[in-house]
Amino acid sequence: MWGARFSVGSDELMKKINTSVHFDKIMYNQDITASIAHARMLSAQKIITKADMLAITSGLIKIQAQIKAGKFKFNEDLEDIHMNIESALKSKIGTAAGRLHTARSRNDQVATDFKLWLRDSIDTIIEDLSSLTDSLITKAKANANTLSVGYTHLQVAQPITFGHHLLAYSEMFIRDISRFKDCRARLNECPLGACALSGTGFNIDRHMTARELGFDKPTDNSMDSVASRDFALEFLSNCAISSINLSRLGEEIVLWLSKGFDFISLSDKFTTGSSIMPQKKNPDAAELIRAKPGRIIGSLNALLIVMKALPLTYSKDMQEDKQPCFDASDSLLLSINCARGLVVDLKPNKKAMLQALEGGYPTATDLADYLTAKHKIPFRKSHALAGKIVSLAQSCGVALSELSLEQMRQIVPKLSTDVYEVLSVVSSVNSKLSYGGTAPKQVLKACALTREKLQKLKKQTGKKKARK
Amino acid sequence: MWGARFSVGSDELMKKINTSVHFDKIMYNQDITASIAHARMLSAQKIITKADMLAITSGLIKIQAQIKAGKFKFNEDLEDIHMNIESALKSKIGTAAGRLHTARSRNDQVATDFKLWLRDSIDTIIEDLSSLTDSLITKAKANANTLSVGYTHLQVAQPITFGHHLLAYSEMFIRDISRFKDCRARLNECPLGACALSGTGFNIDRHMTARELGFDKPTDNSMDSVASRDFALEFLSNCAISSINLSRLGEEIVLWLSKGFDFISLSDKFTTGSSIMPQKKNPDAAELIRAKPGRIIGSLNALLIVMKALPLTYSKDMQEDKQPCFDASDSLLLSINCARGLVVDLKPNKKAMLQALEGGYPTATDLADYLTAKHKIPFRKSHALAGKIVSLAQSCGVALSELSLEQMRQIVPKLSTDVYEVLSVVSSVNSKLSYGGTAPKQVLKACALTREKLQKLKKQTGKKKARK
Amino acid sequence: MWGARFSVGSDELMKKINTSVHFDKIMYNQDITASIAHARMLSAQKIITKADMLAITSGLIKIQAQIKAGKFKFNEDLEDIHMNIESALKSKIGTAAGRLHTARSRNDQVATDFKLWLRDSIDTIIEDLSSLTDSLITKAKANANTLSVGYTHLQVAQPITFGHHLLAYSEMFIRDISRFKDCRARLNECPLGACALSGTGFNIDRHMTARELGFDKPTDNSMDSVASRDFALEFLSNCAISSINLSRLGEEIVLWLSKGFDFISLSDKFTTGSSIMPQKKNPDAAELIRAKPGRIIGSLNALLIVMKALPLTYSKDMQEDKQPCFDASDSLLLSINCARGLVVDLKPNKKAMLQALEGGYPTATDLADYLTAKHKIPFRKSHALAGKIVSLAQSCGVALSELSLEQMRQIVPKLSTDVYEVLSVVSSVNSKLSYGGTAPKQVLKACALTREKLQKLKKQTGKKKARK
Amino acid sequence: MWGARFSVGSDELMKKINTSVHFDKIMYNQDITASIAHARMLSAQKIITKADMLAITSGLIKIQAQIKAGKFKFNEDLEDIHMNIESALKSKIGTAAGRLHTARSRNDQVATDFKLWLRDSIDTIIEDLSSLTDSLITKAKANANTLSVGYTHLQVAQPITFGHHLLAYSEMFIRDISRFKDCRARLNECPLGACALSGTGFNIDRHMTARELGFDKPTDNSMDSVASRDFALEFLSNCAISSINLSRLGEEIVLWLSKGFDFISLSDKFTTGSSIMPQKKNPDAAELIRAKPGRIIGSLNALLIVMKALPLTYSKDMQEDKQPCFDASDSLLLSINCARGLVVDLKPNKKAMLQALEGGYPTATDLADYLTAKHKIPFRKSHALAGKIVSLAQSCGVALSELSLEQMRQIVPKLSTDVYEVLSVVSSVNSKLSYGGTAPKQVLKACALTREKLQKLKKQTGKKKARK
Repeated sequence: MWGARFSVGSDELMKKINTSVHFDKIMYNQDITASIAHARMLSAQKIITKADMLAITSGLIKIQAQIKAGKFKFNEDLEDIHMNIESALKSKIGTAAGRLHTARSRNDQVATDFKLWLRDSIDTIIEDLSSLTDSLITKAKANANTLSVGYTHLQVAQPITFGHHLLAYSEMFIRDISRFKDCRARLNECPLGACALSGTGFNIDRHMTARELGFDKPTDNSMDSVASRDFALEFLSNCAISSINLSRLGEEIVLWLSKGFDFISLSDKFTTGSSIMPQKKNPDAAELIRAKPGRIIGSLNALLIVMKALPLTYSKDMQEDKQPCFDASDSLLLSINCARGLVVDLKPNKKAMLQALEGGYPTATDLADYLTAKHKIPFRKSHALAGKIVSLAQSCGVALSELSLEQMRQIVPKLSTDVYEVLSVVSSVNSKLSYGGTAPKQVLKACALTREKLQKLKKQTGKKKARK
Repeated sequence: MWGARFSVGSDELMKKINTSVHFDKIMYNQDITASIAHARMLSAQKIITKADMLAITSGLIKIQAQIKAGKFKFNEDLEDIHMNIESALKSKIGTAAGRLHTARSRNDQVATDFKLWLRDSIDTIIEDLSSLTDSLITKAKANANTLSVGYTHLQVAQPITFGHHLLAYSEMFIRDISRFKDCRARLNECPLGACALSGTGFNIDRHMTARELGFDKPTDNSMDSVASRDFALEFLSNCAISSINLSRLGEEIVLWLSKGFDFISLSDKFTTGSSIMPQKKNPDAAELIRAKPGRIIGSLNALLIVMKALPLTYSKDMQEDKQPCFDASDSLLLSINCARGLVVDLKPNKKAMLQALEGGYPTATDLADYLTAKHKIPFRKSHALAGKIVSLAQSCGVALSELSLEQMRQIVPKLSTDVYEVLSVVSSVNSKLSYGGTAPKQVLKACALTREKLQKLKKQTGKKKARK
Repeated sequence: MWGARFSVGSDELMKKINTSVHFDKIMYNQDITASIAHARMLSAQKIITKADMLAITSGLIKIQAQIKAGKFKFNEDLEDIHMNIESALKSKIGTAAGRLHTARSRNDQVATDFKLWLRDSIDTIIEDLSSLTDSLITKAKANANTLSVGYTHLQVAQPITFGHHLLAYSEMFIRDISRFKDCRARLNECPLGACALSGTGFNIDRHMTARELGFDKPTDNSMDSVASRDFALEFLSNCAISSINLSRLGEEIVLWLSKGFDFISLSDKFTTGSSIMPQKKNPDAAELIRAKPGRIIGSLNALLIVMKALPLTYSKDMQEDKQPCFDASDSLLLSINCARGLVVDLKPNKKAMLQALEGGYPTATDLADYLTAKHKIPFRKSHALAGKIVSLAQSCGVALSELSLEQMRQIVPKLSTDVYEVLSVVSSVNSKLSYGGTAPKQVLKACALTREKLQKLKKQTGKKKARK
Repeated sequence: MWGARFSVGSDELMKKINTSVHFDKIMYNQDITASIAHARMLSAQKIITKADMLAITSGLIKIQAQIKAGKFKFNEDLEDIHMNIESALKSKIGTAAGRLHTARSRNDQVATDFKLWLRDSIDTIIEDLSSLTDSLITKAKANANTLSVGYTHLQVAQPITFGHHLLAYSEMFIRDISRFKDCRARLNECPLGACALSGTGFNIDRHMTARELGFDKPTDNSMDSVASRDFALEFLSNCAISSINLSRLGEEIVLWLSKGFDFISLSDKFTTGSSIMPQKKNPDAAELIRAKPGRIIGSLNALLIVMKALPLTYSKDMQEDKQPCFDASDSLLLSINCARGLVVDLKPNKKAMLQALEGGYPTATDLADYLTAKHKIPFRKSHALAGKIVSLAQSCGVALSELSLEQMRQIVPKLSTDVYEVLSVVSSVNSKLSYGGTAPKQVLKACALTREKLQKLKKQTGKKKARK
């Protein structure tokens, strides 16, 4: 494959460590699309004839169809997807195939294919994260009034609405989308024409190739074009961060489904049973969403480590750039879509949520706020007084609202009966009218606002695609 | 500190694992700035009196001056910077201090301080990356004609200009800047007013606080505001990616300074000697730039792992969010500034670069291109023929240009004397006129273009700051 | 410091990136101990005079006392702890100080000090892990009969004893101890005398130095001695794995203390309150134990990344080897000791544990086993039948033992009344008499066995120390 | 598969996220071996009949042959390898198949299979690391006298012998072997019989199963048995550390083959050409060895992160435990074997090594040592004087040995002509006779010693295997 000078065949081990076609074949569409654009440009610039271009193009389209149909025989001896396709093209159209690689090298070719693949992946991720966010908003709207527990340290802290809780996740996923959008914009420069590393003496038109492939422009430096993979690192970082956000939702679903919480029920679609304990309803999908950051962060590390301290330009180490991205993309998409399934599927158990609230003194803060607002007690002092009242309730084994006014007056003598209004979880939640707060009124506003943000974001993203 | 209910003092171990003031004290400016903005808003909204606000503000300014002057006594028993300042304020102004924490919790306070700190760090990083890029462009311009070796696999591949090589790095750092700019924009929403997790019943004005602190707007969901740290993860990812780019420059400087290359010399400013080998001139700064991704990626992992599967909202685990960011920021800034020092300091050894080129058959590709362009031989065939000519030169122990026409004609019979033009490294470099190519003419254009990109990027970034 | 050739002072940045005394000063004891052993050996081998040796030794001991008392002034210009001590020695004893560095280099010196430090850390870790394990066994013994819930997927699975659950952790920590023991044995070879990298022409006795310092032998290859840090990587891996085991205990304590479980209570010693919610009892220590793997895995990654692809022998990158180990050691020890505090402190809430069991059909497996054992129904079939009975109980809203025999006979006609014996959680637990099973009888045996394993392991470890 | 209660089919997504047979099928041998041992024990204990046991055993053996021959049809709906085999067994032998799962659960079954797989992998790794070490010793012995450059900071430091350099690696790989040996010993306890998590009421004999499968003993706690994966984490750590050691050799081979060094030549067996630059001889195998730590460390992180904070006992997250181990094992074995190929293949270019030495003042340290040993000048002073002599030589552009005695006496007046003896690289190398030093005499001794260590280590390892 790489020429005449080599007299001795590669060792079997060498082949095994060197070959990549078993994983890079998934880029066949991108490779063929980029080759067609390249051939068109070569022809437009009179570097190859129109006839050669047409032969190349139609040959490639046939190969594409063959691969799609599962009828292409990949050959590990031809190392990668690029050489497999070029070799097949040669069989199909003969000499003209040898002209396709004019003013191109595998170095710029592979960087181009890889960027195209990642761009496609990003577009799918944005689409699917949008669906998930949309489902969260829908479920949040339906639960704008559903009382639930706001935890800190997994301790009951304050009453919230379940809708508000779900919108916390839609905020996270909207940031994830926006991060992928930025990544897409930054990578959308075309390396094709950088050739091996220094550019070429052929009179190529890199702007044309860039345009054909939906890139904003060609890259500005040929060495950077073939040596850099920070676009892939950014993609992986974004996957990792998004998977972390998803893992938190996964964890909460596991908790909510656990008997101690019992906050939701899930259908059998996203749970499994046990091979030995027939009563179990295991939240496998949620657990796997929780686990996926492992492999995605692993993939991010893998490529960071590969690229660390690598001198310019291309080194074979960089063959290790693709698998981490392919696996991270698959894992993230699976997590996103399972999360969406779970969000749509879950049914809140309002009774259990309310019950969990009631034993937890969740309006202690409201009491402190009340003492500050009504009785002008400095907040830190109010806080101490509220604490004493909680202690009293605990020692009596009752809820705050079950203490008598007399009991509370032992601690705050001037207390009046309107204190009972702030001790109820409903009035607590309704009072949180500050911007971004948990009051049902605010939650409904937030649902509308969030849906608007999502629409706006989707509009800005991912217009340009490669010309078909 | 946290109130009346606790009767037994914390265990020493508990204090040790719980305290954070030894590291979070570096956020004192951010904490005080945010508290002043909060107090002003409380007063504007009539939640506290103007007199209290003025007492709080002047008290905080005095504390700020004290800390700056190194005269503040930090107390580990007060756990963190926030409680240290609040406690000092109480000593200074009495009761009014207790009103500052109205409609606020440590949860939203710490998120706000942390974002302000990161925003300041990002502004410095962008500034310093810009200086580094500027130095690269200056050095590149001065070396637009300096011939050097373009490597792949650390094997001599093609002639390049040293200026072109340096511009590959300016591309990377410009992307790094743009990544930090995006991160800054995304994090620039103010969590203050989210309170513990659910918002507040006090009639606060979150838009005012956001404005005062230079944020674009308040955050949209109170639970997300106190529970999310993806802004810090994105900051860390950006640091990691940038450190990887820097590590590659570090590695190249180590190589270039090694006797086998001898491509550059460095002054004693950025090298050290050996305690036992007096002849050594060690590139310590470059080595440490190469090593820093270790700790920065370590920090990124640290926070990713902490946040994985954490249920909403605040958990104590999140106390581990700051040190990774502080350390990554320090390490990255040190690397950037040392890199800038090295770039300014390095003197290319043109003779050694040229010499390295000459033994390496670096114009073999040019020969193949010539066979394709002039003799219309399909590229893959030209490639094979060029390979045979290289083998011939190797077996004769001469450079390509030292082969006679007769010798070459044994392989390509129709070869004419103009082939010698493409065999010279100078004409090779001059011919690479494609966009982004290594020809001196293109490099000079690229210098101008790159400086323009840099200016544009800097203009877009980091305008809004907190009101002093 | 490194000699006469350097005419220009180091840049400030260079100093900042290069200095390490702010963190490596914690190795002062190890440095002085190793220097004394080296001086003794040089004197025994007649390389320096006995008088010089005595001057060096007594000078070093004075410096050691000074540092211990906090009266030593560290100087960043002297780069590291080694040069700080040597410089102080020169001030104290004059010319003789200059003889200490004979047949030694900073390269072998620093490797020796670092190994001594890690060995000390390992000994402490083993000691503290042993105490934690001991506390677990004690608590397990006291709870050999305490019924609790065995979860899979955080779903109620089978009844267990709480003692059995605690012993699962003692198994993990015993493996952690054994891993540190192996690491200690492997690193216990002395690099001193490898000098810069190639050994020395001085007639030194490396076996004597090794012996003095409690090493098993000198290292076998001088280049490996100064270039390798896999001993530190192994230390960090062990810390990471142990922190993972601890994080699982941390997570369980967080869950157990959460209202949904309420399985344990903790005293105020290891919990904190909230600055705004006075009713909270937050398991901060447990949360931080859960979080610590973040920074420890971060540290492991940091050093793995630094060492990756580093050519032999010493490179400055390796200055980054110590901080990760120091921080991992601190973090792990803090986690271990807090975990021990928590284990001793926690009081199981037997009522809540039992209650959680009862609603969860935890004896479904016992029912399946019973059908197999008594009625010879193949297990897979028994499993399906048991599942049907659980479904029946669920639809009736009763526990398994509350179903009537008639009801169950609709599914398994031949069922007799002895089925009720296997449906009780007490008889379930008592029946699990297989080796390593949860039956109280087995748990008591396991307590004795585990304590024995622990004793044996401690006996084998860490005898040799450096001679004082 | 898991029983009667589930009425609705799993969602397609659920299947996709849940299935593992595409990767866990490589454990089919281990699964069948463990099932046979389990069946024998059940029969020996009279829990199943001998006839059932024989049917099960012969059925399993047939399935094993089928899978080996590639004739088994795996079914993703059956989730994993265990259910695929059990289901096939049912088709083959009917009802008896349903008795195999008596007193067993997938939880203990999968832990057992996984440990058996890792044990097999460890045995192969130890075997292959031993071969690599053996090749290093052989090559070292042949190069005990070959002069080469000892670098620090990639700067010429001291003369060494190439054999000594290679032995530095054999030390590292011997430690790697010993680390795997310890890991093997620690994991060699059999989880089978822990069942779902609590053990069983069936009268099983766990010691018998353990013995049959070559385990040292059964595990001591049933919950730990199914919930712990620290054995896999230790395996992955060991892989990561070994890959780091290998990556350093990879990096050195890349450097040595680079034109600036030219220290070795490699045959075409482990190098490749370029698709556009026919003169290239790229060290692809060495580069990939250098890169592999990326994915291996990634895998280590993946599992550490998955296991972090996972409550006991089995959670579905743990399905993510195997792929990291399988991939790390493959990657490490490939690296080891390619490294061995490279070591055997490489031919040192003695001329180039010597030439690199000569320009680098590598005997400056010897000069300093000489001044100390002969003229009793304290080492630190000698060091400064040697430095001045180097500066003089540099400014004259000559080697140290080319300075005249007069020139040197300007700096050290009492110098005599025997100084020229220490200035030669040969005498420098010969003088390094300290234990573990680079003198050829020591290197030959070390070759013998190292081979002995290797033999001893191999003898101690990996005797017990599962009974066939």
